[in-house]
Amino acid sequence: MENLLYWVGLAAVAVFALTGVLDAGRKNMDLVGVAMVGMATALGGGTVRDVLLQRPVFWLDDPIYLYVALATTLAVFIAARGLRLPPRLFLIPDAVGLALFTIVGTQIALVWQAPWLAASLMGVITGIVGGVVRDVLCNEVPLVFLRGELYASAAWAGALVLIGLQALGLSPVIAAWIGMAVILGLRLIAMAFRITLPTYSARK
Amino acid sequence: MENLLYWVGLAAVAVFALTGVLDAGRKNMDLVGVAMVGMATALGGGTVRDVLLQRPVFWLDDPIYLYVALATTLAVFIAARGLRLPPRLFLIPDAVGLALFTIVGTQIALVWQAPWLAASLMGVITGIVGGVVRDVLCNEVPLVFLRGELYASAAWAGALVLIGLQALGLSPVIAAWIGMAVILGLRLIAMAFRITLPTYSARK
Amino acid sequence: MENLLYWVGLAAVAVFALTGVLDAGRKNMDLVGVAMVGMATALGGGTVRDVLLQRPVFWLDDPIYLYVALATTLAVFIAARGLRLPPRLFLIPDAVGLALFTIVGTQIALVWQAPWLAASLMGVITGIVGGVVRDVLCNEVPLVFLRGELYASAAWAGALVLIGLQALGLSPVIAAWIGMAVILGLRLIAMAFRITLPTYSARK
Repeated sequence: MENLLYWVGLAAVAVFALTGVLDAGRKNMDLVGVAMVGMATALGGGTVRDVLLQRPVFWLDDPIYLYVALATTLAVFIAARGLRLPPRLFLIPDAVGLALFTIVGTQIALVWQAPWLAASLMGVITGIVGGVVRDVLCNEVPLVFLRGELYASAAWAGALVLIGLQALGLSPVIAAWIGMAVILGLRLIAMAFRITLPTYSARK
Repeated sequence: MENLLYWVGLAAVAVFALTGVLDAGRKNMDLVGVAMVGMATALGGGTVRDVLLQRPVFWLDDPIYLYVALATTLAVFIAARGLRLPPRLFLIPDAVGLALFTIVGTQIALVWQAPWLAASLMGVITGIVGGVVRDVLCNEVPLVFLRGELYASAAWAGALVLIGLQALGLSPVIAAWIGMAVILGLRLIAMAFRITLPTYSARK
Repeated sequence: MENLLYWVGLAAVAVFALTGVLDAGRKNMDLVGVAMVGMATALGGGTVRDVLLQRPVFWLDDPIYLYVALATTLAVFIAARGLRLPPRLFLIPDAVGLALFTIVGTQIALVWQAPWLAASLMGVITGIVGGVVRDVLCNEVPLVFLRGELYASAAWAGALVLIGLQALGLSPVIAAWIGMAVILGLRLIAMAFRITLPTYSARK
């Protein structure tokens, strides 16, 4: 199971790097600019989590994450340059990545003894900050905050489920699987049925 | 007095969270997006200070800050959704929050033995970075850097007064009160009389 | 040689602060806003490097960097206010600063035992993040990522040369000089002959 998580984690890094490349590609960035945005998207969430918890930054400890992020950006750059890939193609791997990153981040914060609300936010931060950094670097309002099919909210719900189930005595491994299923399920159902949260200015 | 500072500090967190909600509300963000921007605004300044000083991040140590920030964003979202609140309504609590955050941040940096100029900047960072993060996430030039009634400059002046008075031998508590009065006074006077600093390109 | 590096480093801080002032000056920022952006530009890259490596932040250790950055912003503000300085005037000192910051950052990460790819990125981060922060604060897409004469790519090439030469057994001092020459040379040649990297969407 640890092994499986590791591989899914690397796949999530690759998918997030890919979304960074596609976004940066729209901004007339050059090869190295695209690579930087791709790597920041893939590694940003976990980096902010580690800096806040004052743990060693994960990609300085295990460089494989960096290799995967860099190789993905270069491969996409070479293979897909000039192509218009339909963004919806990546929504399912992206949802898997979001689920995995959020659960891993929450679990790390729980082991670190963070209070429950802070631990759930560490999970959300791990899951979404990469995309926020990507959009800030591309000079856009972060997509994950905008009205749209549940994204940050799905991550938050799954993190809270993980924490609640462990507080009820469930084993961390089973709670993690259920938490991931909640995130993935909410995200996929929200995309299928176009479920959105209310916005602040809806009655304007 | 410690007790008073603690409560005023929580009030400042709430006010900053409120300004984050109002700003995010203009950007078509959904409930969770608004909550994230509200919390980032309320907690961003102290977080950057703690990361730079390599102290434990304050809201991981004492989760009450997180509860206040989250409860505020949700309360504003529910109570004021769709309303157009006059922004000037919040200028005075915001000035109190700025004064308090700046003085607390400067004092923490002094205790940490930071050099005087760095300590004063830690105070300014604690006071203004929340607003900078809010504006960057909302894809705007940070308001506190723009021409306008003294804001970052009032914070900086108060931090320097705090440091100078302590260097002259005054007790930290009295120096802190005077520093806060300087920030609050400068800000209120500047708003009343529309006092601004010169801009770089004024003679253009 | 250590002494020389120190002075060139301070000169680089001054030049980066200057570019921050010029950029912020276009955004109607006031004196303190301009000073904040100038200091963030000058000190941002090394700060992010130190936070990621969990070393003490360099300008908290040695306040001279802060004095130089602040004095530069104030001097530029007073001397050049309202003037339109040709941006190309600063390209050569900026290239020297980029070369120096990148090599120093890479060397620090190598001493810290970072893996080679991570060490090279620490160098690039040290060299370019100041400019990225400047452009994000000024609400622009970071210049260093955009199509243009080699910038981040020149920094990265020099960092990799530094690491490769040391792996081959060359002394760090000689490898550092060669790495800096590579960065400076690539940047100047790219500016002279308008050499650019491919962009993602070139064939669109």
